[in-house]
Amino acid sequence: MDMPYLLDILGNENRRNILTLLSYRPCYVTEISEELGVAPKAIIDHLKILESAGLVVSYHDEQGRKYYEIADNLRIEVSISPLMFDVSVSRVEVRSEEQKTIRERYAATSGALNALKYMSDELQRLNRSAMELRETQNSLQAMISEVTGMCVELINQLAADQIEAEILYLLIRGPASYEELADKLNIPEDEMKGELARLLKKGIVTYRKGLWSIK
Amino acid sequence: MDMPYLLDILGNENRRNILTLLSYRPCYVTEISEELGVAPKAIIDHLKILESAGLVVSYHDEQGRKYYEIADNLRIEVSISPLMFDVSVSRVEVRSEEQKTIRERYAATSGALNALKYMSDELQRLNRSAMELRETQNSLQAMISEVTGMCVELINQLAADQIEAEILYLLIRGPASYEELADKLNIPEDEMKGELARLLKKGIVTYRKGLWSIK
Repeated sequence: MDMPYLLDILGNENRRNILTLLSYRPCYVTEISEELGVAPKAIIDHLKILESAGLVVSYHDEQGRKYYEIADNLRIEVSISPLMFDVSVSRVEVRSEEQKTIRERYAATSGALNALKYMSDELQRLNRSAMELRETQNSLQAMISEVTGMCVELINQLAADQIEAEILYLLIRGPASYEELADKLNIPEDEMKGELARLLKKGIVTYRKGLWSIK
Repeated sequence: MDMPYLLDILGNENRRNILTLLSYRPCYVTEISEELGVAPKAIIDHLKILESAGLVVSYHDEQGRKYYEIADNLRIEVSISPLMFDVSVSRVEVRSEEQKTIRERYAATSGALNALKYMSDELQRLNRSAMELRETQNSLQAMISEVTGMCVELINQLAADQIEAEILYLLIRGPASYEELADKLNIPEDEMKGELARLLKKGIVTYRKGLWSIK
């Protein structure tokens, strides 16, 4: 899954509106075009883009009419803080034992109406949990931003120059090999070795089993 | 914070690259331009867009050089499932007691190097928690998608037509007033009242304190 490309695709209001429509029910082109007040030609182009990214799929109903629906279970998270810009895309899959539990409860309720009431309560419970979890993630990001800020203050005191600062800035997130560091900072590996040797001598970093870290 | 507009802004590779650079350190235009191999004019335009959205701010250093940095603490979450397309934007704020705790621990460590080691460990612990939380949210989204799918199957059995189905589809997420339902489905309020009266008569929905819900 090409992560930045997904953000390009979602960075278009018409495509987002198409996805919103398809989240209610599968639709055909004319329906989407009328609902959104956008020419069918443009809708077809957007659907092609969404389809090639694997976000929607099409199928034909018994009358041979072509319907589109959302294909995939994905989650995209973007964290933006003064010292952080992080985009993560994860594919979402139901674990089979959880699926089994839901299916069993579903089968155990008698009558479509009872089952709908039960499943609707379950859905609202799950949505509340998701909302609580989001709160927790927000405060975690706030803490990460705060602690990163303190680290940067300290790095500015400890580092002799910009390159040292950037190396330390990477190492506070976890141990790394000199190849990784050279690659991330776009510096020749030899030069990176020299930089790390200097930081080692000053007692700021340490080296163990091929990985460098804050001492 | 205009949420869809934020996705438009992030749907551009150059703007994402600028944010990535600024997440390492504040930068000035020429620096960004050289690092990304993009003309200064284009960088200035992108920065204007990022600035007007409140994502970056600028300041002048002692030499009068204009620097840009990421301004805000935001989280954007996009959930995409066959029956779900949800975009949420939250502003992230450190709660003051948490901030106090971190600041106290920070003050209690002696020497910049000790403090950096301590804060770096703390950062890695927080990042691990964030990753675990992301896993939990993924499986929650998978469950929500699964349960929504079951609800839709049941709604297809229970609803007499498309409008009934769409009303029930909204009500499984929680109680709603007829005004809300009419607004969301773009149906005149009078017509919505009639639809709800029919669903009430069939014993599928119930009405209490101004709100309709699944019976």
